[in-house]
Amino acid sequence: MASRLGKSTIVFNNRPAIVGYGSVVGKKEMEGPLSAEFDAHDLDSRFGEKSYEKAESRMQKIAVETALRKCSKSENDIDVIFAGDLLNQCVGSSFGLRGMGIPFSGIYGACSTMTLGLILAALSVDCGAANCAAAVTSSHFCSAERQYRYPLEYGSVRPQSSQWTVTGAGASVLSVGDGKPYIDKACFGKIADLGVKDANNMGAAMAPSAAGTLTEFFEDTSTKPDDYDAIFTGDLGKVGTDLLYILTEQNGFCIRERHLDCGLLIFDRNRQDVHSGGSGCGCSATVLNSYVFHRFEEGRYRNILFMSTGALLSPTSTMQGESIPGIAHLVNIRI
Amino acid sequence: MASRLGKSTIVFNNRPAIVGYGSVVGKKEMEGPLSAEFDAHDLDSRFGEKSYEKAESRMQKIAVETALRKCSKSENDIDVIFAGDLLNQCVGSSFGLRGMGIPFSGIYGACSTMTLGLILAALSVDCGAANCAAAVTSSHFCSAERQYRYPLEYGSVRPQSSQWTVTGAGASVLSVGDGKPYIDKACFGKIADLGVKDANNMGAAMAPSAAGTLTEFFEDTSTKPDDYDAIFTGDLGKVGTDLLYILTEQNGFCIRERHLDCGLLIFDRNRQDVHSGGSGCGCSATVLNSYVFHRFEEGRYRNILFMSTGALLSPTSTMQGESIPGIAHLVNIRI
Repeated sequence: MASRLGKSTIVFNNRPAIVGYGSVVGKKEMEGPLSAEFDAHDLDSRFGEKSYEKAESRMQKIAVETALRKCSKSENDIDVIFAGDLLNQCVGSSFGLRGMGIPFSGIYGACSTMTLGLILAALSVDCGAANCAAAVTSSHFCSAERQYRYPLEYGSVRPQSSQWTVTGAGASVLSVGDGKPYIDKACFGKIADLGVKDANNMGAAMAPSAAGTLTEFFEDTSTKPDDYDAIFTGDLGKVGTDLLYILTEQNGFCIRERHLDCGLLIFDRNRQDVHSGGSGCGCSATVLNSYVFHRFEEGRYRNILFMSTGALLSPTSTMQGESIPGIAHLVNIRI
Repeated sequence: MASRLGKSTIVFNNRPAIVGYGSVVGKKEMEGPLSAEFDAHDLDSRFGEKSYEKAESRMQKIAVETALRKCSKSENDIDVIFAGDLLNQCVGSSFGLRGMGIPFSGIYGACSTMTLGLILAALSVDCGAANCAAAVTSSHFCSAERQYRYPLEYGSVRPQSSQWTVTGAGASVLSVGDGKPYIDKACFGKIADLGVKDANNMGAAMAPSAAGTLTEFFEDTSTKPDDYDAIFTGDLGKVGTDLLYILTEQNGFCIRERHLDCGLLIFDRNRQDVHSGGSGCGCSATVLNSYVFHRFEEGRYRNILFMSTGALLSPTSTMQGESIPGIAHLVNIRI
């Protein structure tokens, strides 16, 4: 049974725990600072498939299979899986998981999908609708570029505010289980759109929603940044992170000392040509399901905030002159 | 608090009820047999907007506002809204609802979206994560045609197995409330893909998943078709409905006497040029949030099954030679 706290926060009372997790990445991610954290990778980022879209689907399947293996569960144990991605009609998820026979709930949160899936999986487990639930998402640099921007062969020059879509997938398996990190609280984000129209500056489009969700959570829970071991954002990158600091400080709290952005962790901006940092559903999904949960296992983290951020645009909306709505979903993970 | 029944069925124990609902449609739907049921319409199907995509977003907003008005609630009363549509990156929903300030969970179930949203809204209300939740979805013939098939100006000839995407949006508001129809049970669907590759024959692609979900529900609950006042499918159309009858009869039960398909109800196939029937997220959404709930109000229905069906393809997956995965989510609505 869940309950509500303040205006926007959900409290889970049965400790829906992350009992298994898995991550799989491509070549560039394996050349980055977190290479030792990931479970699986493929050095040509095609995973044996004929198209990038099929490669992305394959990554989702591998991530789920890895997460299941780590908690000694099978596909039959999962009562519902929440899955989504950036591809049109979320085909990364539907084609990746179609053979698994798991009750399937498609979700769409752009790059915020991992946290959205975690919230819904936690809700399902917490209230008894599922004994075991899962969340998975993915992105692929090559499928995202050709869908959102230009064919790779065109070799377009990217502005410095642009981010590099992570090739990767991450999956979490949730159940009620002692001794594992659990989702204690959550906030569904509200859509914020301050009029940013530059699709090469997603960080700026997403920062207001991130600041909004964080502020509501701190107010609802009467907590402050120092109460947490770390505060993660999904993929604000350098530009979005700087804006988040300004916006949260306007709201009266400073997160600099506690804040980490998955998009800045997964790549080395000095060495890898990623401009403002990593992005994509796979960014926060792979960092959460490797680096973050490893720190819980080491005992370094006991209480963190994890907030994936999404830009809810499409190429069509951009061509029609629309601005970019942002969203940020948040979970409080404890052990 | 929810509980599980059998292999795949969720039982809601706190009677999450549909306290408000709204429907809005375009011109062709107003020329069909259900014209007297809908709350709002626009005779040029543009709703005052400059593009079909923006018109679709506008319909979602109108549907939500109508549903809220009918239960005397405001946007601030909604703790979370589950919304999705057929457009790439679900921009019908994100742009339609961005100004409303409601915590937003994007979902993707293709034409099964209405029932998927209902399940998640019911779950949120049932377990106390939300005092009030909503579900909304939409589709627009013109935005769907140019995204999935051909520009309208091309005037392509449609085969007889093809369906006509409904221009419409439907929204439901859920809360714990006496005397209103409530979601008693639900099943998340599993993806079924028997290899249908014809994107002009969605009914055939979706029928196996519909048969699968129905069969599991009857087994889990030890009920039979005659126990229900009606069994609705979302948009199987004529072709898919015939296949559903064959498949369910192979599984040992006959639904013919109880079955209604929203895609066959919303248009008159003899009079309107829709070939196999209506389709799209808006199909089951508008029929549910008008015709179906009106029958509950009249006392004609007391216990029904409502199952929206979705084809989880994209133009990219079709161009890459993939078959079409289908899904069907089900709710048991009672009063």
